[in-house]
Amino acid sequence: MAKVTEADLASLPNWTIDAAGKSIHRELKFADFSEAWGFMNRVALLAESQSHHPDWSNVWNTVRITLSTHDAGGLTDKDITLARAIDALLP
Amino acid sequence: MAKVTEADLASLPNWTIDAAGKSIHRELKFADFSEAWGFMNRVALLAESQSHHPDWSNVWNTVRITLSTHDAGGLTDKDITLARAIDALLP
Amino acid sequence: MAKVTEADLASLPNWTIDAAGKSIHRELKFADFSEAWGFMNRVALLAESQSHHPDWSNVWNTVRITLSTHDAGGLTDKDITLARAIDALLP
Amino acid sequence: MAKVTEADLASLPNWTIDAAGKSIHRELKFADFSEAWGFMNRVALLAESQSHHPDWSNVWNTVRITLSTHDAGGLTDKDITLARAIDALLP
Repeated sequence: MAKVTEADLASLPNWTIDAAGKSIHRELKFADFSEAWGFMNRVALLAESQSHHPDWSNVWNTVRITLSTHDAGGLTDKDITLARAIDALLP
Repeated sequence: MAKVTEADLASLPNWTIDAAGKSIHRELKFADFSEAWGFMNRVALLAESQSHHPDWSNVWNTVRITLSTHDAGGLTDKDITLARAIDALLP
Repeated sequence: MAKVTEADLASLPNWTIDAAGKSIHRELKFADFSEAWGFMNRVALLAESQSHHPDWSNVWNTVRITLSTHDAGGLTDKDITLARAIDALLP
Repeated sequence: MAKVTEADLASLPNWTIDAAGKSIHRELKFADFSEAWGFMNRVALLAESQSHHPDWSNVWNTVRITLSTHDAGGLTDKDITLARAIDALLP
């Protein structure tokens, strides 16, 4: 797994990195639960295909996603790849 | 269950009625399987909430939906209500 | 919305009530993400049908569910009904 | 893509091969829509991960799945692999 570069993070302006630099986070708001759930099902397909799963939560129209590579103890290119694919689902 | 009127059907221009007048049908194309599957999950929520389920199929980016009220042997307001809610999910 | 009784809570032995008595919580472990996600999709159908949505999170095979009625500032029969329906999905 | 052998087909006793030998088919019945939909979401994860998608339909508790490799004009090991993974989801 490749190291994550400043350029990688700069390419993900909607994600915030935690203070320790070990995970990235994005919060999303949708119109309602249905729209949030349709989106989450698309993210589930990405996660399973990439064998890399988010730590995520949902309350009605809100989805919070945290990405980290637990095996590596921090961020890797697997997180960047998944974050970019998630962003590509959004308008 | 109320009868279906001409006005009901006229309000659903993207749906076709079968020759016997017993079901309505809509075919949808999406960008890929992911987009189709996100949509289908939203329709599943509608169907379960309305206790009225479609006869539907999927091949990759294509979704075909047929609505009929089997108990009533044909179309009822349950089909019209679900069809309108499905249409409201689409741009 | 009806008040929650001791008998209600006693009927849900797999759920824990928070210290303030305002929410109930259950954590579930599955074989893998696929099994967890299949379950979550079934809970989503329940939530939408009951117009009552969980505060929930997922990491791979783990699902954590918290139920509370935000409008009522605590637990109501809506939470008990949803918790029972969730339990009924499990072996 | 490898050819499909008699041994491959013999390993899938719950699937039927069409007369032309170009697709395999399995029909499943569940307790209700919820159980069917939970299963279909798990198949969706498999399909997307394997980049091989079924031709499938659903009516309430019934799911019908047809597998074929359209690019190859018939059955290949991609169909056998997906069919086995689908079977592994079932009790």
